[in-house]
Amino acid sequence: MSTDGKLGPNQRLIGVPGSRAALATPALVLDLDIFEQNLERMAEIFDGRPEGIRPHAKTHKCATIARKQMERGAYGVCCAKPGEAIALAEAGVRSLLLTSPVVDPYKVETLVGLRGGLDELIFAVDSERAVDLLARAAGTAGVVISVLIDVGVGNNRTGARSTEAAVALGRHITAHASLELLGMQCYAGHVQHIEDPVARDAEGRRVLEGIAATKAALTEAFGPLKIVSGGGTGSYDIDLEAKVFNEFQVGSYVFMDVEYNAVRPRGNAAWPFETSLFVQTTVVSANVEGRATTDAGYKSFAMDGPQPIVVSGAPEGTVYKFLGDEHGWVHLPEGAADLAAGDVLSCVTPHCDPTVNLYDVYHVVRGDMLVDIWPIEARGRNW
Amino acid sequence: MSTDGKLGPNQRLIGVPGSRAALATPALVLDLDIFEQNLERMAEIFDGRPEGIRPHAKTHKCATIARKQMERGAYGVCCAKPGEAIALAEAGVRSLLLTSPVVDPYKVETLVGLRGGLDELIFAVDSERAVDLLARAAGTAGVVISVLIDVGVGNNRTGARSTEAAVALGRHITAHASLELLGMQCYAGHVQHIEDPVARDAEGRRVLEGIAATKAALTEAFGPLKIVSGGGTGSYDIDLEAKVFNEFQVGSYVFMDVEYNAVRPRGNAAWPFETSLFVQTTVVSANVEGRATTDAGYKSFAMDGPQPIVVSGAPEGTVYKFLGDEHGWVHLPEGAADLAAGDVLSCVTPHCDPTVNLYDVYHVVRGDMLVDIWPIEARGRNW
Repeated sequence: MSTDGKLGPNQRLIGVPGSRAALATPALVLDLDIFEQNLERMAEIFDGRPEGIRPHAKTHKCATIARKQMERGAYGVCCAKPGEAIALAEAGVRSLLLTSPVVDPYKVETLVGLRGGLDELIFAVDSERAVDLLARAAGTAGVVISVLIDVGVGNNRTGARSTEAAVALGRHITAHASLELLGMQCYAGHVQHIEDPVARDAEGRRVLEGIAATKAALTEAFGPLKIVSGGGTGSYDIDLEAKVFNEFQVGSYVFMDVEYNAVRPRGNAAWPFETSLFVQTTVVSANVEGRATTDAGYKSFAMDGPQPIVVSGAPEGTVYKFLGDEHGWVHLPEGAADLAAGDVLSCVTPHCDPTVNLYDVYHVVRGDMLVDIWPIEARGRNW
Repeated sequence: MSTDGKLGPNQRLIGVPGSRAALATPALVLDLDIFEQNLERMAEIFDGRPEGIRPHAKTHKCATIARKQMERGAYGVCCAKPGEAIALAEAGVRSLLLTSPVVDPYKVETLVGLRGGLDELIFAVDSERAVDLLARAAGTAGVVISVLIDVGVGNNRTGARSTEAAVALGRHITAHASLELLGMQCYAGHVQHIEDPVARDAEGRRVLEGIAATKAALTEAFGPLKIVSGGGTGSYDIDLEAKVFNEFQVGSYVFMDVEYNAVRPRGNAAWPFETSLFVQTTVVSANVEGRATTDAGYKSFAMDGPQPIVVSGAPEGTVYKFLGDEHGWVHLPEGAADLAAGDVLSCVTPHCDPTVNLYDVYHVVRGDMLVDIWPIEARGRNW
């Protein structure tokens, strides 16, 4: 962000230092104090432990945030897709784990071609096809590529479907001189969002028992596993206790959202993480009593989750609904004073990851001051 | 798209001439033959009539498509947001109507600053604040800005809430020497997607009666209206018959989608428009019988509508579900042969507009040949 006082063309629409309230909306606003606190709290949980974190960059898609996570102890970052990894590598992030199988030869070749410029590049695989593509590309490039066996955990997303299948895939990997088997990965996505702590605990433990059995079989077949990676923001506490993983793919803790805020931590304690990410929106029409139309609709909030929650600019009890692609619809509580065109509201995002994917930049604030603008380099890089 | 046979870095991931099946997925694929047919059919409907179209660019966000619409008779294009209009103006589109009220002074100033380089720039307004901001910016810039009164049509989105309010707003507009009142606009969004033709017809006619009354009052107060703009793909036939509008803001006809395909035309006839837009996705994991995991989840399909429909690459009866941000989940019909990692599927988008907003480019095909790549200049420009 230019801070020399000279405004470039359209600078007022990009963001003028200090002017949080005057941002062109809808804008994705990151509260830096809370973000830094979330970063610090997750790091503290792992300080002095044998386990560590390799946070998932699919949440933030941002090289600046990846670097901050690594400066505070993260081993590297995870990426969901090749396009995401390529964007972050081009922006200087040097340690990447691809957590989804890559089965497109051009994607595999392009990623393997990045290896020389990186400190670490790891692939999760769950099929012989993925292994073969990787082995061929690594052989052609004359490099050795690190591989994890992706293990399915009952939610049928990706992964070897049984311990036997995982061991067989491991044998297929170790048969290739251009591949190095580093360990295993599994992500129990369905556990993360079980709101009730007792139910989440029970399902988390059930899943971990299966993972532990596969880990034991792989260790017997191939020796000690350097990486056993999994877990997320919604299960890190359960997973830490179980001592199955040595790396955690936590993601949403940096931002939090309506969905994660609804998940109750164990013992109904408070989360150590608070909401740092908001969509700022403006009332564009207020001609109906008790209602107001904002400028943020389906194109500004991901729609797979619950409704956004309004946290400033409107009275408590205000409900945010949608009026289509371009507009939101604020319903004020009974008796509240009407809003006016131009009023600015701040909302917690329903589901942070796909909402981030709708924006080009984070508008970074401290209190009411806009202090920086961070590009979201991997926005739209979902291939 | 480079067609000289030389491949730039990452060209295989961007798209190689001819290779539709080898696109890096998820990719947004536009079938050019069907797209051109849709363009032609809508144009033919208006050929020789006093009414015309000013298609809504919020659907496609693409200067190439805007130009093709204007080459085939469109007066110009509509934009939902200032950022969208600025992006299209920068890409050379010279006739723009802003259909949502703009109440941010910086946005108004920036748009008014574009006026000199455009053939036409029209604003819809629904509040005195919007009028005053526009009048001030136009006065400062020494230009006259064209204005439509945005009239609410019972769906409480934007617009003057009554005929009296519309007339009062008209008087406020004509009191400013820097503004020129061109007419009125109203968009009955809720009518467009009523699937039953008889119910849609009834609601469309009901809404049009109110619009006609407001039009009569505005004509009496201000003389003949040059522009009476409204309608959409789901109501153009009803609206044409009613002779209330002289301009139609049709949008989705260029692409069609699962939602619009579910709307039944009057008399249960066939739509003159066919689906031209698809999301191409690849199976990345196929370890579960009767299922397959694809690479297109919440970040690759807008989630406000129904499920995508698979039209190629999997047998009829295949159902597309979601497995989260990054993955889709294909359920094959009983007895069908399993898919394999690497298989490529094509899906109709549930709701075209917000899905387009997730992609940087259209991969333009004729049959199985990739023939062009069109940038989506206004992607993400929802401010």
